[in-house]
Amino acid sequence: VSGEWAAIEQIASLAGKLDPPEVGMGDDAAVVAVPAGGRLLLTADLVVEGVHFDLSYCSPSDVGWKALAVNVSDVAAMGGEPLHALVSVVVPAGGDLAGLYEGLVASAGEHGCRVVGGDLSSGSELVVSVVVTGRVAGAGPVLRSGARPGDTVFLTGPLGASAAGLALLLADPGASGPLAEAHRRPHARVAEGLAALSAGATAMIDVSDGLATDLGHVARASGVGVSLDEVPVAAGATLEQAVGGGEDYELLFTAPDPSAVIGAFEDAGLRPPVAIGSCVADASVRLLRGEPLGQEGFEHRIG
Amino acid sequence: VSGEWAAIEQIASLAGKLDPPEVGMGDDAAVVAVPAGGRLLLTADLVVEGVHFDLSYCSPSDVGWKALAVNVSDVAAMGGEPLHALVSVVVPAGGDLAGLYEGLVASAGEHGCRVVGGDLSSGSELVVSVVVTGRVAGAGPVLRSGARPGDTVFLTGPLGASAAGLALLLADPGASGPLAEAHRRPHARVAEGLAALSAGATAMIDVSDGLATDLGHVARASGVGVSLDEVPVAAGATLEQAVGGGEDYELLFTAPDPSAVIGAFEDAGLRPPVAIGSCVADASVRLLRGEPLGQEGFEHRIG
Repeated sequence: VSGEWAAIEQIASLAGKLDPPEVGMGDDAAVVAVPAGGRLLLTADLVVEGVHFDLSYCSPSDVGWKALAVNVSDVAAMGGEPLHALVSVVVPAGGDLAGLYEGLVASAGEHGCRVVGGDLSSGSELVVSVVVTGRVAGAGPVLRSGARPGDTVFLTGPLGASAAGLALLLADPGASGPLAEAHRRPHARVAEGLAALSAGATAMIDVSDGLATDLGHVARASGVGVSLDEVPVAAGATLEQAVGGGEDYELLFTAPDPSAVIGAFEDAGLRPPVAIGSCVADASVRLLRGEPLGQEGFEHRIG
Repeated sequence: VSGEWAAIEQIASLAGKLDPPEVGMGDDAAVVAVPAGGRLLLTADLVVEGVHFDLSYCSPSDVGWKALAVNVSDVAAMGGEPLHALVSVVVPAGGDLAGLYEGLVASAGEHGCRVVGGDLSSGSELVVSVVVTGRVAGAGPVLRSGARPGDTVFLTGPLGASAAGLALLLADPGASGPLAEAHRRPHARVAEGLAALSAGATAMIDVSDGLATDLGHVARASGVGVSLDEVPVAAGATLEQAVGGGEDYELLFTAPDPSAVIGAFEDAGLRPPVAIGSCVADASVRLLRGEPLGQEGFEHRIG
């Protein structure tokens, strides 16, 4: 934590959302309370200008929001709750640091975690590197590897909105509306992850790389196949965007008892998840309505 | 934690130093044990090519080593012990990622912490963004703000070697020897920080920005002045390099009982720290042998 954090702390304080930990920015390290005798979740994701986003169609504030949200989403995908965030930024000369931190702090507030530290440097392209810590209840975490044949596969919401929004933004950088917003300012599904954990979820992942890819991660880690009956497609998106698009940050999970799942989401006041198929013993199976599931989304953003 | 970590995990495993946590790389988040009922230290520092280092005079392995070590140093400066590291890297096409991770993993092993996660992206310049967690015993952490008038000021070792090494490397990028090594591969003073904590240290900081700057941080945070009798200068370095150079990562601390300090370091089998002066009540005082302490090092690396 370097001296430049004075500026950041000021920005964060102005935004009125910084709830200081025991020792926050300004000393060598932040000091935070940890869950008694418990385990901690730690996740890291960075976004790079020109690779993960383009400032022509999203604002610095959007970049800050999303960089925080995608890390929280990884905690949610374990059935955890976010606690702290550390945010390190590389910013080119003239970069809108205040806008970036405004989005970061707003996202942290929305997702219930506290920015407790970070670092800042100049550089030639904008990089936002975030680490989020999380706590997880005794029954968790929900890994990718626990799905069993016969488990039902659930999704917390329809897919494709982010990819459809990106298509709109590439055609018109000033586009607005729910699809563009879904791409610029995604929300992590923390409450849904907790409900899935309480309902006995056996495996879980957030849909960041696309349904086909992320479902593949769960199937491979668990040693099961998957046969899908349907893929819920967001209004305004195509089936291809829903299967391959990624960045929707809905949670995909498997569970043996569908009625327990519906009950847990109802109890939490959440929209019920959609049962989209089931796990099968043959680990080579990837079907959608009996046809091979397209791999359009497979690692599509890498390389 | 994205899919690219398969490559990193392989590299780390080959290096034979990766001691996996409960859940490591490959799921959405790492799961780590935390000190029972305790508090956790969290620190973040990033290094950027062309700002913090130049690959003309240090190798990718050196960059990895140092990026990890400077984070551990922040934990040491609180009187803590490092636990986990998360490492996110932006690498240009053709970058030597294997060399970078070799240095990171070697540094993590040397400093007693485990790499449990991170992220990886392409980009136009090399960026290494590290977060380190640490634990701290009940008497800690040692903040910057606890120094009191009458406390003795200690340094864990002589200063200036890193700045002298950098001068050598700028003149001859192939330079070797202890000064060049001090700049390329610094060591964090974890054992020394623990000894200082056990000896009742009232304030502590690592000398990363230069003695004048870092002493100023402690004095301002504590509301005391400082009057120094001497500055121990590393062999081959100048007094100016020792006062203003930075990046030596020795610990500067204050303590009320010098004999307790010497005893604690002796008990730990450590080289005794050097008593370099004392804290005074007048918060405006910054003296070296009665003369105004030069501010050559003041925020010299920023801007």
